Amino acid sequence: MNRLDAKKRIEQFLLEDVGSGDLSTDLVFGERRMGRGVFTAKESGVVCGIDMISLTYEAYGDDSVVVTPYKREGQRVRKGEDIAEVFGRVSTLLSCERVILNLMQLMSGVSTLTAEYIQELDDPTIRICDTRKTYPGLRIFEKYAVTCGGGYNHRYALYDGVMLKDNHIAFAGGIDRAVSLVRQKLGHMVKIEVETETEEQVMQAVEAGVDVIMFDNRSPFRIKQLQKLVPESIITEASGGIRLDTIAAFKGCGVNYISVGALTNGVKPLDISFNSTESAKG
Amino acid sequence: MNRLDAKKRIEQFLLEDVGSGDLSTDLVFGERRMGRGVFTAKESGVVCGIDMISLTYEAYGDDSVVVTPYKREGQRVRKGEDIAEVFGRVSTLLSCERVILNLMQLMSGVSTLTAEYIQELDDPTIRICDTRKTYPGLRIFEKYAVTCGGGYNHRYALYDGVMLKDNHIAFAGGIDRAVSLVRQKLGHMVKIEVETETEEQVMQAVEAGVDVIMFDNRSPFRIKQLQKLVPESIITEASGGIRLDTIAAFKGCGVNYISVGALTNGVKPLDISFNSTESAKG
Amino acid sequence: MNRLDAKKRIEQFLLEDVGSGDLSTDLVFGERRMGRGVFTAKESGVVCGIDMISLTYEAYGDDSVVVTPYKREGQRVRKGEDIAEVFGRVSTLLSCERVILNLMQLMSGVSTLTAEYIQELDDPTIRICDTRKTYPGLRIFEKYAVTCGGGYNHRYALYDGVMLKDNHIAFAGGIDRAVSLVRQKLGHMVKIEVETETEEQVMQAVEAGVDVIMFDNRSPFRIKQLQKLVPESIITEASGGIRLDTIAAFKGCGVNYISVGALTNGVKPLDISFNSTESAKG
Amino acid sequence: MNRLDAKKRIEQFLLEDVGSGDLSTDLVFGERRMGRGVFTAKESGVVCGIDMISLTYEAYGDDSVVVTPYKREGQRVRKGEDIAEVFGRVSTLLSCERVILNLMQLMSGVSTLTAEYIQELDDPTIRICDTRKTYPGLRIFEKYAVTCGGGYNHRYALYDGVMLKDNHIAFAGGIDRAVSLVRQKLGHMVKIEVETETEEQVMQAVEAGVDVIMFDNRSPFRIKQLQKLVPESIITEASGGIRLDTIAAFKGCGVNYISVGALTNGVKPLDISFNSTESAKG
Amino acid sequence: MNRLDAKKRIEQFLLEDVGSGDLSTDLVFGERRMGRGVFTAKESGVVCGIDMISLTYEAYGDDSVVVTPYKREGQRVRKGEDIAEVFGRVSTLLSCERVILNLMQLMSGVSTLTAEYIQELDDPTIRICDTRKTYPGLRIFEKYAVTCGGGYNHRYALYDGVMLKDNHIAFAGGIDRAVSLVRQKLGHMVKIEVETETEEQVMQAVEAGVDVIMFDNRSPFRIKQLQKLVPESIITEASGGIRLDTIAAFKGCGVNYISVGALTNGVKPLDISFNSTESAKG
Amino acid sequence: MNRLDAKKRIEQFLLEDVGSGDLSTDLVFGERRMGRGVFTAKESGVVCGIDMISLTYEAYGDDSVVVTPYKREGQRVRKGEDIAEVFGRVSTLLSCERVILNLMQLMSGVSTLTAEYIQELDDPTIRICDTRKTYPGLRIFEKYAVTCGGGYNHRYALYDGVMLKDNHIAFAGGIDRAVSLVRQKLGHMVKIEVETETEEQVMQAVEAGVDVIMFDNRSPFRIKQLQKLVPESIITEASGGIRLDTIAAFKGCGVNYISVGALTNGVKPLDISFNSTESAKG
Repeated sequence: MNRLDAKKRIEQFLLEDVGSGDLSTDLVFGERRMGRGVFTAKESGVVCGIDMISLTYEAYGDDSVVVTPYKREGQRVRKGEDIAEVFGRVSTLLSCERVILNLMQLMSGVSTLTAEYIQELDDPTIRICDTRKTYPGLRIFEKYAVTCGGGYNHRYALYDGVMLKDNHIAFAGGIDRAVSLVRQKLGHMVKIEVETETEEQVMQAVEAGVDVIMFDNRSPFRIKQLQKLVPESIITEASGGIRLDTIAAFKGCGVNYISVGALTNGVKPLDISFNSTESAKG
Repeated sequence: MNRLDAKKRIEQFLLEDVGSGDLSTDLVFGERRMGRGVFTAKESGVVCGIDMISLTYEAYGDDSVVVTPYKREGQRVRKGEDIAEVFGRVSTLLSCERVILNLMQLMSGVSTLTAEYIQELDDPTIRICDTRKTYPGLRIFEKYAVTCGGGYNHRYALYDGVMLKDNHIAFAGGIDRAVSLVRQKLGHMVKIEVETETEEQVMQAVEAGVDVIMFDNRSPFRIKQLQKLVPESIITEASGGIRLDTIAAFKGCGVNYISVGALTNGVKPLDISFNSTESAKG
Repeated sequence: MNRLDAKKRIEQFLLEDVGSGDLSTDLVFGERRMGRGVFTAKESGVVCGIDMISLTYEAYGDDSVVVTPYKREGQRVRKGEDIAEVFGRVSTLLSCERVILNLMQLMSGVSTLTAEYIQELDDPTIRICDTRKTYPGLRIFEKYAVTCGGGYNHRYALYDGVMLKDNHIAFAGGIDRAVSLVRQKLGHMVKIEVETETEEQVMQAVEAGVDVIMFDNRSPFRIKQLQKLVPESIITEASGGIRLDTIAAFKGCGVNYISVGALTNGVKPLDISFNSTESAKG
Repeated sequence: MNRLDAKKRIEQFLLEDVGSGDLSTDLVFGERRMGRGVFTAKESGVVCGIDMISLTYEAYGDDSVVVTPYKREGQRVRKGEDIAEVFGRVSTLLSCERVILNLMQLMSGVSTLTAEYIQELDDPTIRICDTRKTYPGLRIFEKYAVTCGGGYNHRYALYDGVMLKDNHIAFAGGIDRAVSLVRQKLGHMVKIEVETETEEQVMQAVEAGVDVIMFDNRSPFRIKQLQKLVPESIITEASGGIRLDTIAAFKGCGVNYISVGALTNGVKPLDISFNSTESAKG
Repeated sequence: MNRLDAKKRIEQFLLEDVGSGDLSTDLVFGERRMGRGVFTAKESGVVCGIDMISLTYEAYGDDSVVVTPYKREGQRVRKGEDIAEVFGRVSTLLSCERVILNLMQLMSGVSTLTAEYIQELDDPTIRICDTRKTYPGLRIFEKYAVTCGGGYNHRYALYDGVMLKDNHIAFAGGIDRAVSLVRQKLGHMVKIEVETETEEQVMQAVEAGVDVIMFDNRSPFRIKQLQKLVPESIITEASGGIRLDTIAAFKGCGVNYISVGALTNGVKPLDISFNSTESAKG
Repeated sequence: MNRLDAKKRIEQFLLEDVGSGDLSTDLVFGERRMGRGVFTAKESGVVCGIDMISLTYEAYGDDSVVVTPYKREGQRVRKGEDIAEVFGRVSTLLSCERVILNLMQLMSGVSTLTAEYIQELDDPTIRICDTRKTYPGLRIFEKYAVTCGGGYNHRYALYDGVMLKDNHIAFAGGIDRAVSLVRQKLGHMVKIEVETETEEQVMQAVEAGVDVIMFDNRSPFRIKQLQKLVPESIITEASGGIRLDTIAAFKGCGVNYISVGALTNGVKPLDISFNSTESAKG
C-alpha cells in the first residue's frame, strides 16, 4: 500500500471525526498528560491494519507516540490477544482512537472473512479474489486487507483492466467484435476479461483469445463443463452471488479464480477494543 | 445533508474508481451514444441515496443526464421495484454505475437496517440512534441514511458533543469533578453525556445535572431499575452490544434512546441493480 | 484546537503569502544563515496564538526552528514584554513572519477584547460568548481565542446546534410548532435555542421546553423581566448589538450568557512586532 | 478578481459554516420551498462584494437562485438602502446567509474605510494603498475591496515585489550592496522598494536607482524634506502607523503613496442585514 | 480521458497562471466585452487537446463561451489551418489563452511526434507505445495524446503493471524466482513484463511464462534473433534509446511493440496561435 | 523556491505515479531491505533540482533516506559524473525513482539550455529570460531552473506584471490610452511592459513612460535602430521566435533582455540515470 496515499486519506478521516477539536478530551486532559493504551482483539480473526495506528498518529501531527506491535499484518489473533501497545500523549491516543478502530476493524474484518472463504472452499487450486464493490474512498484499505487474508486483487478500478459485459458485447455486436474493437486501441499491459454465460459465449471468448473468461452466475456443475472448453493459457473466473455458505460447492470445479463481492462490502468488522490508562510517569 | 460536501466527496469516489479513464467503456462506446438505465431493488428494504444519482453524474461533469426518481428517500421498496430511471450518455451511465451503486446500496442498507431495529424493538417511546462507528469518510452519508430509516443521530463527531467515559472520569476523579471541569469551559450549546454502569454513578450523574445519561452495557432489567433514578428532564440512553436479535428485550425498559453501533458498521448493503440499454434514438 | 486542521489552514496561508517564493529574502539571505528573533507585544493585552509560531514553521517545512515561549496562552502581556523567542534559519524566520503576525495579532486581539468585555460587564454570573460572525476560514482560530480570553463558544456552526429564528418560527406557524417539528427528527445531543422578543414568545419557548432562550435585542431592564419567566433549567442568552460601551448596563440582569458578534468581527488586532537579528554563529 | 480562486475559497467557507448540514433549516424548511430575500445596508458606506452573493450560491451547488443587484461594486450606499434582492430555495438562502454576510461586510468595511482615508487626506496627488497585513486566506477579497474604495494595491505578497527592510540591508552591508545583490538575480518585471529613515539612506536609495523609496515612520514635515531628495522618476511611499485621525496632516507632503495597514486589518465591517420571506408562490 | 480528472488539473493550471487575477486584462477590458478568437496551427501536425478548450473555460467558471471545433482529435492539420473558433467574454478568452495553448501545444506535439515515429518505422506489424517518462502531473494528457497520434499506452504507472528490471531480478535470484515470487501474490488482471538482454534471459522469461518480454537496448539485428525464441502467445517489446532517426532500422525486426520515452518527454510542442478580436456586437 | 509549494506538488506527482502502490517493488522487496543508489549524469550539462531528491522522499513519507549531494544547484556536470548518492529503504528508492528523474531531468534540461543560450549569445550586457510558456503545473520548477542556468525570470504569471499586447492596445485606442487606463488603477509595485513593432509605437511607449518596451519579432538590425529611441531608464526586451541557432545574431544589438519561450517548453531533458544496489547491510 502507498503510505502517502493512505496518510492523505487518514488526514481526511481525522478531520471528519475530530473537526474543530475533541471537546471531551481537550476539556479534561491537558496536552502534557502521558498514557498507555492497548489494542485488543475481542474476537478471533486475521488482523490487518496495524500500520494504520502509527500512520494515524503521524497524520494527526503527533510524531511522539511509540507504537509496539505484537502481531504482524495478516496474522491470526485469538479473542483476548493484544494486537499492539501504544505510549504517548493521552489527548492524541483518545482523539485518534475511533478513526483507528473504525479503520482497523474494517480491514481486519475483510482479512478475516477472506480467510474464511478460503478455508470454506478448501481448494488450493482456486484463488479467492475481490471486486470493485468496495466502500467509496476505502478501496486502498480493503484491497490490501484482502491480500492480508490470503486473497487476491481483481482489477483495481475501471482504469487498469478491461471487462467486457453484456452491454459492451451487445453494442459491439458480439464477443469477437467487442474484443477486436478493444484490441485496436488497447496497450499490451492491460488484460481483457469477458463475461460469459453460455457454451457458445465461452467458445467465442476462447477464439477471441481473451486473457480471462468469467463464468457469470453459473453453478459449480455447469462451470466444470465450461471449464473444459478453455485452454490452460486462459485464466477462468467464477463470479456472481457466491457466498460463504455456498462456496464449498465450488471445490474442485476447476476454475482458477472465484471473485466475491461480499469480501469487501457488508463485511462484519472484527471487534477490537482500545483500553487506555493514564501513565503514572506522565 | 450538505450537497456541497457530498459532491466534493463523490468527486473523490469517482477519481478512485474511474481514475485516468474507464477503459472498457471508452474503447467500446463513443461519447455520443445515448442510453437508458434503471436502478432496481433486488430485495425489499428502505431506499436511501436517490439524490446521489444525479449528484454523481454532476460531479462527473455531465449535467445532461435526466434522472426520474420513482421512490422518495426513506420509502419502502419491494424486491423487483424500480427506484429511478436515467437517460443520458451511455459512457456516463456506465462509468458512474459502480460509485452510485456502492454508495446507494450502503445507504439503503443502513436505512433498511434502522427500520428493522425499530420494528424489532416495537416501542415508539424509545428512539434508535447511531454512533461514531461509521466507515471513515462516509459518515455524512450513513448518518443521513439512519434518519431516512426512522432513526436518530447521536453526536456527529468529537466536536459537537461531550461524552465522558471511564477514563475521563477516572482522570478527573469522579463524575461530579469531570462534569464541573468540563462546565468551566464548555459553551451552552453543547450537551454533556456521561457513561454509567452502577446505581452510584447514575446518581452522581443526576446530581451533576448532565444532559444525557448512558447506561453502558446494562441488561433491560437493570436499565428499568436505573431509569427510576433519573428525572424526566435528563435523557437516558442504553448502549453497548445491542443487536437485532436482542433489542426486543429492551421493549418497555423506559430508556429514551438506544444507540446501536451496528447500524452503520458491518451493514449488509441493500442489493440494487443497474440495467442499461443503448437507446435506439442515441 | 485540532492541530491538524490548524496546520492545513496555515499551509494555505503560507501559500497565499509566500507563493512561488519570498523574493527579497531568497535573493539576500542564503538558506544556511541562522538568526534569532523575538515576538514582542507593542501594547498591553491578552496574548493568544503562541502555538501558531511553531506550527507555522512546521507547515512551511522547516522543523529545525527552536521556539521558546515566554508566555502562556491567554496570559496578560504588558506593552514591551516579549512573547516568544525563536532561533533558526533567517530565511524561514523572515518568510513566515507576516503569516504568524497576522494570525497571532488577530487571535490576541480577540482574546484581549473578550477579556475587556468580561471586565466591563463585571458580573461573574454572566458568561460572554461568541457568534458565527467570524472571518471566513478563520473560525477555528477566533473561537479558540475567545476561550483564551475567558469567554465561551456559542454553537460552532450550522451543524452543531439548532437556532430557531423568526423566519423558521413564522414558517412553522409558531414557536411550539417549530420546536416540535424539529424535535421529531433531531437527535438528543443537539440543543435547541429560540429567539424571542416578547413575553408571549418567552412563555411559549418555556412551554416548548427548549434548551436555550435568546432575548433578542432587549434592554437590560426588559431582560430582567423576561428572565423571571424562565425556570432555572433553561439557559438564557442576551443578544443583539451589545457593545463594549453598553455591556456594563447588563450587569445583574440575570441572564446566563451574553453573545457578542463584535468579539470576532472587526476586532482591533493586538499590535505585536517581530525583530530578528542574524546570528553571529550562523 | 479571479472568480475561480474566489469560488474555491468560498467553497471552503461554506464547508466551515454548513459542514454536515444546516440543522435548523433542514428540519424546518423542505428543499422545495421558495423565498425572497433582500440585502440591506444598515449604515452608510461603500458597498463591495456584491458578486460574492451569486458566487456563494453557485459554490453551494444551487445555480437556480436569481440575484438582482441594486448597486454596483464600489458604489456608495446610505443606511437603509437595498443592495441586492435574491429569489430562490429558502434552504439555500438561509444556509448561505452567514457566509455571504461575513464576507460582504468585511469587503464593504474595507471599501468604506479606504474611501474615508481618501476623503480625510483630501489630496488627489497622493494615493492610498494597502499592505500585506490582511486576514490570512482573505487577501484576494480585501485587496479587491481596497480598489473598490478608490485605493491601490501594494505588492500582493512576498513573490511579486522586492522590499528591502533594515535586516536585509544590515545583512548585505548597506543599501547599495543590498540593491546590487538583488539586481544580480532579479528579473526586469519586479520592482524594488527600499525602506529608509534618514536623509543618508534616502540618498543611497536614489543613487542605487530603486523603483520605490519608502519613508518609514516619518512625520509629514520630515517627509516634505526627504521628498526633495528624490527625483520624479522614483516613486515615494509614506508608511508606518498612519491612522484615520492622523492622515490629514500628510496632505501636501508630496509623497506619491501612503500605505495603511489598518485598511485591511481590524476594519469595522459595514453592517448589512439579510431579510428573507417565504414566497407565496413557493 | 476522465474529464473530471482533467478539469481538476486544469483548475490548478489556471490558478498557477491567473492567480489573484489577470492584471492586464482586468484593467483594460470590462467583463461585458465580447469577442471572437481562433486557434490556428502555425505548423503542420496532428492536433490533440481540442476538448481542453471548452474544459478550460468551464474550469475558469465561465460556461458561456461557445466553442466551434474545426478539427477532430488526432486529425492532421496543415500550417495555417484553423483548429477551433471561440466566442465569448474577451476577459475569459484572454485570461485562459496561455493555459490552453501550453496544454494543447504539448498534446499536439506528442500526437504529432507519435505519428512521425509510426511513419518513420513504416511497419504496421509493430506498435509504438509510450513509457512513464512523462512530465509530472501531465501524464493523463500525454498518454491520451499518444493514442491520438496512433500510438499505444504502456502501463500507466507503477500500480497497473509489473515490470521486473535487473535489480528486482538480482534481488530475487533470477527471472524464474522473481516471477514466481510475484505470482504468489499478484492478481490475474495484471500483466508481468520482464526486461531481458541475453538469450539466456529471454529463454528464462519464456519458461516463466511472463506476459511481455522486453528486449532492453538490443539492436534490430539482435532482436530478430531473440524474437525467434519467443512463442507467439508472449508479447515482445523493444526498448531503450530508440530515436526518430534510428527507428527505421527496426522495421521488420518482428517485435510487437517499440516503447519510446521521447514520445512524451522533451517533445517539441506543435506551434499553435490564438488570435482574438473584440466583437462589434460586444 | 518555496519548498512547501514544491512539496505539495511533488506529493501529487507521487500519487500520479505510485497510486495505490508500486506492484513490482512491493511484491519483490520487503520494507526492511536497505540499499544505495546513485544519480549520474549521462550527458554533460548544468544540473538543477538536486533538492528535489530529498523533498520527494519526504513527500513520500520516508524521512530516513540519507541524501549526499556531490554537486551544487546550477553546477556543470560532465557525462558520467555522479550528482548525488542516496542510502535508504530499497522500496522508497525504487518507488520514487521515476518522479525524481522526470523532474530533475526537466529542470536540468532547462538549466542546461539556458546556459547554452547565454553562451551562444556571448554578450554579457544582454540577459536571457523566460516566458509563461511553461508546462502547466510545473512553472515553479522551470522558472527556478532558468535562474540556475544563469537566466532571469520574466513575470511569473498574469498576476504580477502588466503586459500590453496588440489587442489591449487596439481596444484601448492606442498605447498612450492603454497605459493611462492601466495606470489609473494599477499599484506602484507592478511594472508595465508594452509590445511594440514600429518606431512609432516605440516612441509612444517611451512617451507613455512604460517600464519595459518589448520589440516584438524584430530583427537584430532593426532592434539596434529601435533601441536608440529608448532612454536608458526604460528597459528593453527582444522577443519572438529567437532560437539557439539564431540568437548569436543578437549580440551587440543593445537590448537589455531577450526572452525565449523555448527555454521552458519543448526542452530536451538532461539524461540522468539512477542505479541502485541492495545493501549487504540491509
